[in-house]
Amino acid sequence: MQDFLRELKTRAATVERALERLVPREDAYPSVIHRAMRYSLFAGGKRLRPVLALAAAEAVGGDPEAIMPAACALELIHTYSLIHDDLPAMDDDDLRRGKPTSHRVFGEAVAILAGDALLTLAFELFARCGDALPAERVTRVIAEVAQAIGTAGLIGGQVVDTLSSSDEIDEKTLEYIHRHKTGALFRVSVRTGAILSGADDGRMDALTAYAENLGLAFQITDDILDEEGDTNTLGKNTGSDRKNKKATYPALFGRGCAREKARCAAAAAVEALDAFGGEAAFLRALVEFVIQRDH
Amino acid sequence: MQDFLRELKTRAATVERALERLVPREDAYPSVIHRAMRYSLFAGGKRLRPVLALAAAEAVGGDPEAIMPAACALELIHTYSLIHDDLPAMDDDDLRRGKPTSHRVFGEAVAILAGDALLTLAFELFARCGDALPAERVTRVIAEVAQAIGTAGLIGGQVVDTLSSSDEIDEKTLEYIHRHKTGALFRVSVRTGAILSGADDGRMDALTAYAENLGLAFQITDDILDEEGDTNTLGKNTGSDRKNKKATYPALFGRGCAREKARCAAAAAVEALDAFGGEAAFLRALVEFVIQRDH
Repeated sequence: MQDFLRELKTRAATVERALERLVPREDAYPSVIHRAMRYSLFAGGKRLRPVLALAAAEAVGGDPEAIMPAACALELIHTYSLIHDDLPAMDDDDLRRGKPTSHRVFGEAVAILAGDALLTLAFELFARCGDALPAERVTRVIAEVAQAIGTAGLIGGQVVDTLSSSDEIDEKTLEYIHRHKTGALFRVSVRTGAILSGADDGRMDALTAYAENLGLAFQITDDILDEEGDTNTLGKNTGSDRKNKKATYPALFGRGCAREKARCAAAAAVEALDAFGGEAAFLRALVEFVIQRDH
Repeated sequence: MQDFLRELKTRAATVERALERLVPREDAYPSVIHRAMRYSLFAGGKRLRPVLALAAAEAVGGDPEAIMPAACALELIHTYSLIHDDLPAMDDDDLRRGKPTSHRVFGEAVAILAGDALLTLAFELFARCGDALPAERVTRVIAEVAQAIGTAGLIGGQVVDTLSSSDEIDEKTLEYIHRHKTGALFRVSVRTGAILSGADDGRMDALTAYAENLGLAFQITDDILDEEGDTNTLGKNTGSDRKNKKATYPALFGRGCAREKARCAAAAAVEALDAFGGEAAFLRALVEFVIQRDH
């Protein structure tokens, strides 16, 4: 695990440098919007989604450097969704990754616009991949990403999550929320790396199954961490799901059973990579990390 | 003018039918977000941006039908920007196109998400144009649109508009706001139609000059209408710019001078089309409409 963590850190640092390069500087006019975008983007995220896209490219023999703008775009999308989720009209959160949320620092108007701007810049970065890669792959990725984060994906999950009160959420609804709110972006992150690298259908399917199970394991672990983690390690207020009457896996199934579900999904993720060799070693190791992490 | 208005109506109706086809139905789960998207999208907009894109395609000998998803995407973007602009944290408007604004009907959370969803769906529609058209043109359009509506375009204009109070707005700032908030989307609408239709550089430049001047004429006229129009015709509260201490052309230059500026821009727009023949007749007639309209 120590080796993996070091490797993960190295890869995240590569993403960090690319983001630094690809996002407008703080002093570009109008400065406040760029400061807000960077404030949330460089708040210590784990960069899991870009790292997943890059690792998927690697697993199918692609060139990670060529897909870097797309990998960064996935992190921009993740950050936009967090900023908008945290807004007073949504989850009304004050703390994110140990820092005051965007709207607490910049006000609601700029927070909304910073989210909009990150989402918009993400699509510009996808399109820019067309400079180094076949444009057909790029348009396919853009269509898939837009679907994954639209009303049949991330936004759909957020709508159901925001509008449901916990007592009406059954297993099916909880599963819907998680599959859409978190799962869809995980899934399309892996697919983005694979599509841009020209993966064949067999490898696409295997990587997709991997991503779906990884996303599930990630989300269940997130729910458990929210219940038991402490605010300092997690960087957000713990128990906030329960406070906000959010449905969670431990609340619905009990903690032991939730843990078991996470382990099952993790095993299925690893199994999906059976046809791959050493080129998928990082993706395999990532599964263990996702269910064992403490933040 | 009567003939032109009939023609404009016919073209807008074609866009209307395409939007109807391309946007998820109201009963698609989760229903509320689709109802909110459609509520604002089908609230009687003039469909100027899609009509511009289609007319630009026509002017360079392209196939308007092939670029229809992109034309509709431009209207989705325009609608998203209106929904977010109207939010309590921004302009706090109650009325838009004669109907209560999105957040007044669906609440702030759904209004924010409906805007996000329209923006996201727009990029899916652009990407879909790759089915019928060369993917290289599509990635170029996506990159240009994202720039036009990002922090160097529409969002930048909105940031400066939201954060400036009228007494600190000089001519340069007002010009910045209008060029970015309205002008950039007009400009890229025309360019979208031309790029997707494979226009050469000369025609691209001419159409771009046309669009920039048309956008300016449109915005000045909008400012004048906001001051003198009546609420019923306009469908939004008039004088709201002055109430919100927004900078406007008539406030800064006086009404007569503002009118003169609109006429100058209109003349420059028509002049930019000098190299075109009958294939640009509609674009020419549109200029007159933009400065003579009463809503």
